Amino acid sequence: MEDTICAVSTAPGAGGIAVIRISGPEAIAICNTIFVPRTAGKGLLSQKAYTLRYGSIRRGEELIDEVLIALFRAPHSFTGEDTVEITCHGSVYIQQQIMQLLIERGCRSALPGEYTQRAFMNGKMDLSQAEAVADLIASTSAGQHRLALNQMRGGFSHELKNLREQLLHITSLMELELDFSDHEELEFADRTELCRLADHIEGVISRLVHSFSVGNAIKNGVPVAIIGETNAGKSTLLNALLNEERAIVSDIHGTTRDVIEDTVNLGGITFRFIDTAGIRETNDTIENLGIERTFQKLEQAEIVLWIVDATNAVSQIPQLTTQILPRCEGKRLILVFNKTDLVQDASTIPNSSFTVAATNVQCISISAKGRTNLDKLQQMLISAANLPTVTQNDVIVTNIRHYEALTHALEAIHRVQQGLAENLSGDFVSQDIRECIFHLSDIAGEVTNDMVLGNIFEHFCIGK
Amino acid sequence: MEDTICAVSTAPGAGGIAVIRISGPEAIAICNTIFVPRTAGKGLLSQKAYTLRYGSIRRGEELIDEVLIALFRAPHSFTGEDTVEITCHGSVYIQQQIMQLLIERGCRSALPGEYTQRAFMNGKMDLSQAEAVADLIASTSAGQHRLALNQMRGGFSHELKNLREQLLHITSLMELELDFSDHEELEFADRTELCRLADHIEGVISRLVHSFSVGNAIKNGVPVAIIGETNAGKSTLLNALLNEERAIVSDIHGTTRDVIEDTVNLGGITFRFIDTAGIRETNDTIENLGIERTFQKLEQAEIVLWIVDATNAVSQIPQLTTQILPRCEGKRLILVFNKTDLVQDASTIPNSSFTVAATNVQCISISAKGRTNLDKLQQMLISAANLPTVTQNDVIVTNIRHYEALTHALEAIHRVQQGLAENLSGDFVSQDIRECIFHLSDIAGEVTNDMVLGNIFEHFCIGK
Repeated sequence: MEDTICAVSTAPGAGGIAVIRISGPEAIAICNTIFVPRTAGKGLLSQKAYTLRYGSIRRGEELIDEVLIALFRAPHSFTGEDTVEITCHGSVYIQQQIMQLLIERGCRSALPGEYTQRAFMNGKMDLSQAEAVADLIASTSAGQHRLALNQMRGGFSHELKNLREQLLHITSLMELELDFSDHEELEFADRTELCRLADHIEGVISRLVHSFSVGNAIKNGVPVAIIGETNAGKSTLLNALLNEERAIVSDIHGTTRDVIEDTVNLGGITFRFIDTAGIRETNDTIENLGIERTFQKLEQAEIVLWIVDATNAVSQIPQLTTQILPRCEGKRLILVFNKTDLVQDASTIPNSSFTVAATNVQCISISAKGRTNLDKLQQMLISAANLPTVTQNDVIVTNIRHYEALTHALEAIHRVQQGLAENLSGDFVSQDIRECIFHLSDIAGEVTNDMVLGNIFEHFCIGK
Repeated sequence: MEDTICAVSTAPGAGGIAVIRISGPEAIAICNTIFVPRTAGKGLLSQKAYTLRYGSIRRGEELIDEVLIALFRAPHSFTGEDTVEITCHGSVYIQQQIMQLLIERGCRSALPGEYTQRAFMNGKMDLSQAEAVADLIASTSAGQHRLALNQMRGGFSHELKNLREQLLHITSLMELELDFSDHEELEFADRTELCRLADHIEGVISRLVHSFSVGNAIKNGVPVAIIGETNAGKSTLLNALLNEERAIVSDIHGTTRDVIEDTVNLGGITFRFIDTAGIRETNDTIENLGIERTFQKLEQAEIVLWIVDATNAVSQIPQLTTQILPRCEGKRLILVFNKTDLVQDASTIPNSSFTVAATNVQCISISAKGRTNLDKLQQMLISAANLPTVTQNDVIVTNIRHYEALTHALEAIHRVQQGLAENLSGDFVSQDIRECIFHLSDIAGEVTNDMVLGNIFEHFCIGK
């Protein structure tokens, strides 16, 4: 925190312009040694905050680029430190030259997430807000964007703060009661009132814990397994679905997601496709093992697309009740009759009037190759995802670290409820309340250890 | 020029931050409808130029991002128009959302190079300076960077302006003489003095024309052909040379170069490697045709690397005088004996004492696979390139359009010199002077037609 850091904060590669950000106690002084303003006047040292200045970056006599300088003074900057932003021409060469020059003059190349980490350290935001910055940058759908933005702006932090204040209120009442336990006539904490309060807190934490399934589906995508025989057209279907949206997804790099899975945005919802091996009826032991693995992968899915070759549909239906349905409990199953373009007699395809003795199954006939009925299948996927519409004010947990902390907080508040119900001594109950507060504080980063912090920020992109 | 344009000006993809630039008469008014400042106070309409403002971008009630706004007022901006720069979080989604919102509110998505084109149209820079902006962004070596920066700052424009003023001076003197041609006693234009001036101008234009071979080598790379038998190790050598520098080269996209050739920077000089098919002695007609094509490619090269398998070196030497040398006139030829790691008896390799009856030939023994002597080969390439050290004040032509215009200007000034020497009538000489001025003005974009302009700017990257 003592040193001054620098990084290219815009996307890697060449562009029209690039922005290099310098933050730390020496940011302005260092930039002043390499910047020559176009118009006469004082240097950067006396430049007003929140103003821009045009001039050139020089290494001695050598001109490196003509740039625009934006200046911010502590604590009124993103990091809370003195900050200079250099907007230069976007050649990779210029970006490298300016970075090198800054390092020669005493800056250090910033680590991933170090600007946001400093903002957190300087109290500009709590840890959950800092984590939301990375999520915001990685967002590719409206839902992800809304959740990250709300979290970054402190929607979640505010809810956590409320909870902790209520818990502190309970514990202070109980501890006061303990201090005066000799005076039985004094009743600071009405037990009924405390129980009501604990129930309320439990309700809020419980709602947050349960919001994670929605939050996770929005952030990481609704998991969809595509199963079926190898020649049923799984790959063709996947490619057809990915086709239009692929470009957006593959644009992302350097952010929190190291591995890009096959994800596609449909109607603002992200679907994540799980690869499976082809299945078919067989007596071969080894092949049966492969099929078993496919079925194991089904467990991760919320939606299962069973692709059936429509030219040979009827013969495969028995598999539905024997093999597929038993493994789809609690999931949505969509039967996709593919290759309708090759079917002579459409009446041989089981259509939507085809009935299965299960309410979680739907049917559709498509041609992945001919792109027939793909829009209907997309609509089916969207409604099967059954995601609630998220508004910018909804507090929904999307982060597994927060989910774990909340789960622990929920266990603690359950013990508090039980303690109060059983009229346990205030000592015991208070201890559980403090544990609940501890886990909530962990989310905000108030009790979080350095290793966890390091782990969080190293998954940020450079320059943020 | 009447409409307001917008584009993401930073490199494509996700980054910590991104900058969206809006330029045109409605830039400030449009941004004012979507920007809500954090602190109370007036909107953007009354914001001072060259200041920054923190706040949020909203579509009605919906928050899109928290951003920083930089504001510039005409004519004190890059384009010379009112300009707003929005620095947002660098997710692709946010970039798309803000662009979409700006377009909904009346902006138009900018064409490639349109900001620079407007800067040119508004008289902020001449055409050669505008062209240098694209070169600057595409620069990957110190030499390219220096030339582009000098040209962008008007070094070349200044030289052209001087030439045109001198030409105008001559022509005005000659035309004055014509007006008073009845009064033989009056001599406005001393012919000897005019000849001296024309010679000086010819000297300057001639120097500029000849600087193109250096300028082109710096900008596009020194062309190097690697020839040799298919199994001599050409690919291994090329990969070994490219290895360290490849990353920098492949970082470039979206700029003026659509096709990335195999280029490598050695000692600040860019070398461009020309692929050739393998050659070997053969009587097969078809194969001989392929070899002839290889030799044709040699013509583009300034340096030829002839790779010879050192385990079988002596047998190939005869080819040198019969096939290679005759095709290397005016070029530098480097004989590279490769695979020295496989040679038992080093004395079988012709070493540097190996003499050829040509001064443009050098020898070296290497192992491309073992990376032996590669540094010496690199030094040989650097000295064979024989490029002068370019300083930031050197005016060197790098653009083929400028080279062509200068060639025409040179032809015209040659006719002027001839006309003066032959004491031709001022009418005729003046016409050639005007033609010379025309070609010089074409470089600055003063007489350039729209199609040429369109062709120049469409090779820029989006957002610049």
